[in-house]
Amino acid sequence: MNTTIVKAYGTEAAEAPLNQMTIPRREATPHDVEIEILYCGVCHSDLHTARNEWHFTAYPCVPGHEIVGRIKRVGDHVIKFKVGDVVGVGCMVDSCRECEYCKEGLEQFCVEGNIQTYNSPDKHLGSQTFGGYSEKIVVDESFVLRIPGNLDLAATAPLLCAGITTYSPLRHWNVGPGKKVGIVGIGGLGHMGIKIAKAMGAHVVAFTTSESKFAEAMRLGADEVVLSKDPAQMEAQRGKLHFILDAVSADHDVNAFLSLLRVDGSLALVGAPEQPLPVAAFSLILGRKSFSGSLIGGIAETQEMLDFCGKHGITADVEMIGISQINEAYERLLKGDVKYRFVIDMSSLKNE
Amino acid sequence: MNTTIVKAYGTEAAEAPLNQMTIPRREATPHDVEIEILYCGVCHSDLHTARNEWHFTAYPCVPGHEIVGRIKRVGDHVIKFKVGDVVGVGCMVDSCRECEYCKEGLEQFCVEGNIQTYNSPDKHLGSQTFGGYSEKIVVDESFVLRIPGNLDLAATAPLLCAGITTYSPLRHWNVGPGKKVGIVGIGGLGHMGIKIAKAMGAHVVAFTTSESKFAEAMRLGADEVVLSKDPAQMEAQRGKLHFILDAVSADHDVNAFLSLLRVDGSLALVGAPEQPLPVAAFSLILGRKSFSGSLIGGIAETQEMLDFCGKHGITADVEMIGISQINEAYERLLKGDVKYRFVIDMSSLKNE
Repeated sequence: MNTTIVKAYGTEAAEAPLNQMTIPRREATPHDVEIEILYCGVCHSDLHTARNEWHFTAYPCVPGHEIVGRIKRVGDHVIKFKVGDVVGVGCMVDSCRECEYCKEGLEQFCVEGNIQTYNSPDKHLGSQTFGGYSEKIVVDESFVLRIPGNLDLAATAPLLCAGITTYSPLRHWNVGPGKKVGIVGIGGLGHMGIKIAKAMGAHVVAFTTSESKFAEAMRLGADEVVLSKDPAQMEAQRGKLHFILDAVSADHDVNAFLSLLRVDGSLALVGAPEQPLPVAAFSLILGRKSFSGSLIGGIAETQEMLDFCGKHGITADVEMIGISQINEAYERLLKGDVKYRFVIDMSSLKNE
Repeated sequence: MNTTIVKAYGTEAAEAPLNQMTIPRREATPHDVEIEILYCGVCHSDLHTARNEWHFTAYPCVPGHEIVGRIKRVGDHVIKFKVGDVVGVGCMVDSCRECEYCKEGLEQFCVEGNIQTYNSPDKHLGSQTFGGYSEKIVVDESFVLRIPGNLDLAATAPLLCAGITTYSPLRHWNVGPGKKVGIVGIGGLGHMGIKIAKAMGAHVVAFTTSESKFAEAMRLGADEVVLSKDPAQMEAQRGKLHFILDAVSADHDVNAFLSLLRVDGSLALVGAPEQPLPVAAFSLILGRKSFSGSLIGGIAETQEMLDFCGKHGITADVEMIGISQINEAYERLLKGDVKYRFVIDMSSLKNE
């Protein structure tokens, strides 16, 4: 298979910083589009993978799965896109397309395991897949999304992971008018959760451990903000919430939040704390409550989310960086020092 | 308020054995029925409460909330029942009837707190309520159930708690034809779960830690039995189950069972392990799964369950005891030495 060599930013080892490298990209096959990458968001998963914190990283590793770019070339059988279209690529670039979950549009739960945008086996080239910290990417059109024309492109990039990760559970658990919804954690995921839940018509209660985030939460669209370490403020919400989106990746007491749910309420985890979370039986039994999880969303739902964000003018709050700032950005990410998502201006890679 | 004094079996303190005592019962008010108790099942909650293991027992304590009896008297305004009817009383004898959950038929989740059959504040007499280990009980007709005529009365008593506790989640999570359902633990609750899930038309997979229970599980109606401590048998069920009813009250690893669920599957806890259960985030996120709980059922649903059991000829497997054997029965209950529910023949109290 013919390939071209493109510039990228990645790492050779868990302990090594990211630096410039080159990677091969396949020539577009009949169903592929070749995308010049304009912007790439920086997700915490990028850092986990670059540093092998989940223990399955193949090196070299080029992260990045919040990709917005412009199509430069299309394969002969491509029907959805044309050269010049502005498109997005999220966490997946392929799946088996045959299993019951793929057929239901739940490619994120593909029985065979979907092909992730980076650090998955690349069936074309035999190596691992390489992500969006690169000049271009070649993707089957079935896994490429249309970007609404009215959105700022840099601020749209994080929708491809942070956006769908929060949109999907809010939709699945029927958030909308008349529903009171909690969003726990105001970071990369949580700030999208607040914006999307509000746009869906829900009454949004943001939970934070820091009073300093109150004004920010209100600005993002929260109707109320609760200091989760204040028992009186928590007690005032007891039994009031239809649904809670829990976007906290650090260890925390989910029982305290389960007690805020109404009967038949669900709390869905989208962060992934490293240690198991202790759940008291009575937290669930008294009120037929559910402690649930959610993982990104399928391709059709990702398009639905982008169209929803286009309609409601929703993008992420971003801080733009050049590719050479990525190692510094990772350190700041670890400290929670970003409002709320770093996005790499990929034109910076051209001049490296 | 006029009362009569009746014989009962109960305890004066957490450390004391149960022994004969007398308690007052109110004269039937216009909406009450007076029931001569024929049989009373022995639930593990009886033991927990008698021994103050949940730390809110008021003494003297007369347990028993799996009651079958015959109506001896009806109040002037009673419309559902007449003298001579065979009826049941379960875990609740009243609730606020005004809150949104009561109005939805979810009296078990009454915002004010429902009045439990024993160890709740008795609004008529001011004392705590006294349960079914007694000659008779007086209950508002709204909380009294009709018993199908074709069922063995002694074996029907456990349906009032063990039956509804398993029926309600199986119904709520849409168990039926085409669904593969796991039942974890083959005891008082689990053996009812197997029978009811099978009668609902599901494919039933029973899980046990003991090979000695395999034949029993098949006899009860299981289509398959899995030894939960055998990793190969567990692996063969991975991703196969639509729903799991977890009836284990001891500490156990729910992550192992969550891994057996299909995408969007739920595991509902109906046992109540004392210590919080550690749940790994990835057990829920990978497959949008839910770890849930369920608590008995509402009054209308309890009637539905009894009618269902009548239609399908379902009762509990019971071992009959006299009231004087109750302390010995509690000791055997602690060892799991009962197939599968003790039921007290309350005529034995008459001769004490």
